Amino acid sequence: MNHKLLHTPEGVRDIYGAEYARKLAVEHLLQHEVRLYGFEDIQTPTFEYFDVFSREIGTTASKELYKFFDKEGETLVLRPDFTPSIARCASKYFMEENIPIRFSYLGNTFTNTLGLQGKWKEVTQMGAELIGDESVEADAEMISLVIKALKSTGLTRFQISIGQVEYFKGLCEEAGLDEETELELRECISAKNLFAAEDLLLQKNVEDARREVLLKTADMFGGIEFLEAAAREVHNERSLQALRRLERLYEVLKLYGCEAYVSFDLGMLSKYRYYTGIIFKGYAYGIGNAVARGGRYDALLQHFGKTAPAIGFMIVIDDLLEALSRQKVKIQIPEEKRKLIWQEGCYEQTLREACRLREQGIPVILEKAQD
Amino acid sequence: MNHKLLHTPEGVRDIYGAEYARKLAVEHLLQHEVRLYGFEDIQTPTFEYFDVFSREIGTTASKELYKFFDKEGETLVLRPDFTPSIARCASKYFMEENIPIRFSYLGNTFTNTLGLQGKWKEVTQMGAELIGDESVEADAEMISLVIKALKSTGLTRFQISIGQVEYFKGLCEEAGLDEETELELRECISAKNLFAAEDLLLQKNVEDARREVLLKTADMFGGIEFLEAAAREVHNERSLQALRRLERLYEVLKLYGCEAYVSFDLGMLSKYRYYTGIIFKGYAYGIGNAVARGGRYDALLQHFGKTAPAIGFMIVIDDLLEALSRQKVKIQIPEEKRKLIWQEGCYEQTLREACRLREQGIPVILEKAQD
Repeated sequence: MNHKLLHTPEGVRDIYGAEYARKLAVEHLLQHEVRLYGFEDIQTPTFEYFDVFSREIGTTASKELYKFFDKEGETLVLRPDFTPSIARCASKYFMEENIPIRFSYLGNTFTNTLGLQGKWKEVTQMGAELIGDESVEADAEMISLVIKALKSTGLTRFQISIGQVEYFKGLCEEAGLDEETELELRECISAKNLFAAEDLLLQKNVEDARREVLLKTADMFGGIEFLEAAAREVHNERSLQALRRLERLYEVLKLYGCEAYVSFDLGMLSKYRYYTGIIFKGYAYGIGNAVARGGRYDALLQHFGKTAPAIGFMIVIDDLLEALSRQKVKIQIPEEKRKLIWQEGCYEQTLREACRLREQGIPVILEKAQD
Repeated sequence: MNHKLLHTPEGVRDIYGAEYARKLAVEHLLQHEVRLYGFEDIQTPTFEYFDVFSREIGTTASKELYKFFDKEGETLVLRPDFTPSIARCASKYFMEENIPIRFSYLGNTFTNTLGLQGKWKEVTQMGAELIGDESVEADAEMISLVIKALKSTGLTRFQISIGQVEYFKGLCEEAGLDEETELELRECISAKNLFAAEDLLLQKNVEDARREVLLKTADMFGGIEFLEAAAREVHNERSLQALRRLERLYEVLKLYGCEAYVSFDLGMLSKYRYYTGIIFKGYAYGIGNAVARGGRYDALLQHFGKTAPAIGFMIVIDDLLEALSRQKVKIQIPEEKRKLIWQEGCYEQTLREACRLREQGIPVILEKAQD
């Protein structure tokens, strides 16, 4: 026998037994919360035309996409992320709709990273997208939903860290940086590589005070009180508006009773370039990867021909399960099944009992006695 | 805008709104039945190494597989079918296990057929595999489960047509056909191309009486009474055993109260060559494709190094939904959501009401009044 036959490809895996039962139970709990907020389930294809995830859209880098061809010779891509697909659907089916649309999804995504990075290449994501509402109340709805969904699984030790892309963009604009430099700087700051960031800004002759404020974004995180302190240090309207929106967001989150789970991080910049306003990540004690991610993407739908603001989030179920297990949260899974063993000659009687129990809703394994 | 951006690739699609709600409801009903029979959910990767679906395994033809490469240069395949993946898992995790294993799955499969054939290239399948039980009682368990699962969705006008690969193999053996000829003949008979089948048998100098019985398999279908008639016409032990097994199967299905949904078809031969014993297809009034398919595959696990008999089935959810819709079966979907509209100045009050309703389990959309 070819021994490779028994193995799953690099970076993907089988899930079964109690582990999978827990995964299904957690999915169910999360979906329940999302439906309570009025979101409607949608299923998009596992693969899309390459263009839906192209560079202009600003999602996963092309080299991390699984690509292949259909019989017509078109390039197809296994979705690395649901948001562009949902944006495509909203544009296709609700082009003229002005009333906000709420979609939610549950499914797998695929990123073709190098095996050494120790990340799964196929993960299950549950997420929601609210399209057509630009208000800060919509921002609060989504963040409170993430918090309530995570809490519904029994997770308690987690924080939603909230950033605002506009704050950084305002600073870049004030410093007169072009888009290319802004993107480069964003990468340096995301990677906490401040030497490279400083070099870049010196090279672009950014004056001292502005350079300092830009470099400082990497350290700009904390509670609500720190937003006020930040506001005293910036002088452009765009960044100030961003800070005011975060303050108002916090007020609304207090109405939801969610403020204890929230902190702010102005240096947070996503690898997805489609985000335009607030962005956020959910970190759980015991695991490095963010278990939830999201943000506002007011310009993305324009790529698909629809002008509409939007905000969304997704929870990586596999990472959440890891966090729950590290935090020793017990997840309720369906109780043990009954097993009825039949001997030669009394099959009929045992079968009848099995049918009776199943009719009562009790799972039964019917098994022949071993010889 | 690039107009292609709005479209899904050829042969795949988006599902949303009431249609998707119905799909989820049907999946839930089917899963409930499968769990009552003691099957355990399992999730395998969406893609596997090519070898898992290679020619030797006997699943979908290579030209109908979606293939691509991972970073290590290995050929990967989007699963066209779950059974080989489940066989791989059972062999990998339960190599030494003698007690029967019951796995069930729900997920999407992919076949890269030519667009013209009007079939979806991505469909959702729910299925179950019973590994390690060679008894006719196991055959009956699986067929009764298919019937009960289909009935649980409200479908009433359907039939499970049952064949037996061994009947045909016995006839081929009696006629002295080699494996290659047997496969060729199987294809002719499946395609109901009896002229080609006759030519082939004449070419191989199969004597008249045996040729006639072989050609007749294409017409061998009907109720239980016809199995007895069939038994009078064959003279080899292998085919006779096959008929006796079908008779015994029918007896057990009567104990399950399922006999009304069953008929027999000795000319039924699957495109999946891994089937070894009984095979079956579920046909529903109003749709041409079989909504359920399955059979015994006692030799498949050997490819993965485990010696174990097995039997499985799968239901194509998308085809079942089509059948339900053609038969005008109403599927219960969650009731309408409440919508609360807030005006500027009374957001807090409306939000409080939304939270109160959601705590009672009532889905609420919170929406800002249009200007």
